[in-house]
Amino acid sequence: MAGSNGSSTSDLKSKFLNVYSVLKSELLEDPAFEFTDDARQWVDRMLDYNVPGGKLNRGLSVIDSYKLLKEGQDLSEGEIFLASVLGWCIEWLQAYFLVLDDIMDNSHTRRGQPCWFRVEKVGLIAANDGVLLRNHIPRILKKHFRGKPYYVDLLELFNEVEFQTASGQMLDLITTLDGEKDLAKYKLAVHRRIVQYKTAYYSFYIPVACALLMAGENLDDHVLVKNVLIEMGVYFQVQDDFLDCFGAPEVIGKIGTDIEDFKCSWLVVQALDRVNEDQKKVLYENYGKVDPACVAKIKALYDELNLKAVFEEYESTSHKKLISSIEEHPSKAVQAVLKSFLGKIYKRQK
Amino acid sequence: MAGSNGSSTSDLKSKFLNVYSVLKSELLEDPAFEFTDDARQWVDRMLDYNVPGGKLNRGLSVIDSYKLLKEGQDLSEGEIFLASVLGWCIEWLQAYFLVLDDIMDNSHTRRGQPCWFRVEKVGLIAANDGVLLRNHIPRILKKHFRGKPYYVDLLELFNEVEFQTASGQMLDLITTLDGEKDLAKYKLAVHRRIVQYKTAYYSFYIPVACALLMAGENLDDHVLVKNVLIEMGVYFQVQDDFLDCFGAPEVIGKIGTDIEDFKCSWLVVQALDRVNEDQKKVLYENYGKVDPACVAKIKALYDELNLKAVFEEYESTSHKKLISSIEEHPSKAVQAVLKSFLGKIYKRQK
Repeated sequence: MAGSNGSSTSDLKSKFLNVYSVLKSELLEDPAFEFTDDARQWVDRMLDYNVPGGKLNRGLSVIDSYKLLKEGQDLSEGEIFLASVLGWCIEWLQAYFLVLDDIMDNSHTRRGQPCWFRVEKVGLIAANDGVLLRNHIPRILKKHFRGKPYYVDLLELFNEVEFQTASGQMLDLITTLDGEKDLAKYKLAVHRRIVQYKTAYYSFYIPVACALLMAGENLDDHVLVKNVLIEMGVYFQVQDDFLDCFGAPEVIGKIGTDIEDFKCSWLVVQALDRVNEDQKKVLYENYGKVDPACVAKIKALYDELNLKAVFEEYESTSHKKLISSIEEHPSKAVQAVLKSFLGKIYKRQK
Repeated sequence: MAGSNGSSTSDLKSKFLNVYSVLKSELLEDPAFEFTDDARQWVDRMLDYNVPGGKLNRGLSVIDSYKLLKEGQDLSEGEIFLASVLGWCIEWLQAYFLVLDDIMDNSHTRRGQPCWFRVEKVGLIAANDGVLLRNHIPRILKKHFRGKPYYVDLLELFNEVEFQTASGQMLDLITTLDGEKDLAKYKLAVHRRIVQYKTAYYSFYIPVACALLMAGENLDDHVLVKNVLIEMGVYFQVQDDFLDCFGAPEVIGKIGTDIEDFKCSWLVVQALDRVNEDQKKVLYENYGKVDPACVAKIKALYDELNLKAVFEEYESTSHKKLISSIEEHPSKAVQAVLKSFLGKIYKRQK
């Protein structure tokens, strides 16, 4: 979802970051809680550490999408501000998930720095900080959208998407449950369901849904948009699974460990579909082991099964299907929103 | 908050438990997520393990309060059902906090069974289960209150109280931060603030606030009610702190460890206010140590300082103040609600 067309992108980003400062200040003065100096400093540092340090693609896409939906019309500063606020709510949601996921996965680094729970004096207080991040969202929505006709829809949208994401996370956790390592469970439908719920709603659907609500639309009228965005989310995660194994670590910014972690990756699902009896044995004996020799055997098997070509075929087929679904949409503005999203991820290398 | 007047209480409780089964079934069929059998079983077991096993006082008080507010009027089955649904939302909220708190405190048992995260195959998946519990609340509210004029107020009430509770938990965690054990910070105002935010809003204020909303009241008109309930919450927690040290373990159902845990307990705050130089040294040298000899020294000091009598004095003064605040309220029905609450906790032994 990266986008870079020179200074206008970085202008947009710096404007967007200004809105973060406004929101942070408001939260640190929330009258529903009497902050002590220590408490205020804690939240201040926690926010700076966890919220603004990502690529901000989810947040920025609310503004992009809103602009495209209002094509031809001049947007006021106020509208841009409100779209940015919604964008930040999504970034807050993301930060909340990441802080808790890192605890659950016992991860080490995130966005190039130690995970929050690994920072000195933080430890498991991070779990409560995750909860605080989550709680900031309705505080922000109340402050800035209380009088809007779509206020309740916004609250319900964030609630529903959070529920779906947590449900997807549960599915992932119980599927990958330690001590029950069983590749027989790893089917394409299982993979798809995890990805759809864990990633697609909050990464793809909610930014556009926020923009639609701001534009006065009823989300019930946009089932097609939702379905296309979910498909894009699935496609995005398949890319992620592919890059975890075949991407260049210096480009993607991390060293993939899906094989070691016994993840229900798209690659292992495809491999299981194509193995003969001998290859199946290799897969069962080596998948989910930290030993680099085992990992190497899995990667060799993936090459043998030509999974790179399988992925390229998938990527091109998905792209075609997505384009034709998008072109079914009656509104050119909505088509532009969806095509803009797709353009940002098609054939991405990171 | 215990209540026992024979069979009518247990009738009420069994009716209330029936509503739990209804809500659980609805959640396990929530169309916003495609459950697999495994996922459905996981949530089913997780709910049964964590939601209904407490004393249910918070939940039951919504029904009690609503009945008192509608004094003289016959309540329909539908009204009782809705009050029970709100009661369960508070129990869900409590379950969410407890599941996460137990992880953060590295606790062992809860309600007479191992903490959820200590159950085999659960582990840190419990953190996500906590998130799911939290997410169930707006699902329940949407299903049962979507059309009500007070729907938005309910959503905002739960959001605000959750925010306050998480903020109080943060205050507690950063005040008791390991490695910075400093009794000098333990002042009455610090104690009060932690207790007010961490306990009073969700244990005392929200049940009555739910009943008021159902009765068509505007919560902005009930600042006095809120303040009295917060005072009661503080009083309740002071009792808790007292019983942690002086209660009979077989009656309170647990062995207190506030002294070992370096907790900002009302007792240590009172002790700090009364010590001479020698006693202060004893306090500083022995508070927050697991060694039973250290704990014994602290308890001996509490006796020397006559903290039992200090507590009794506090209890009686607080009770008088609460009664007189309650009697300032213009509505006899509201007075009845508040007095009923107070009656349940005054001079409690567990």
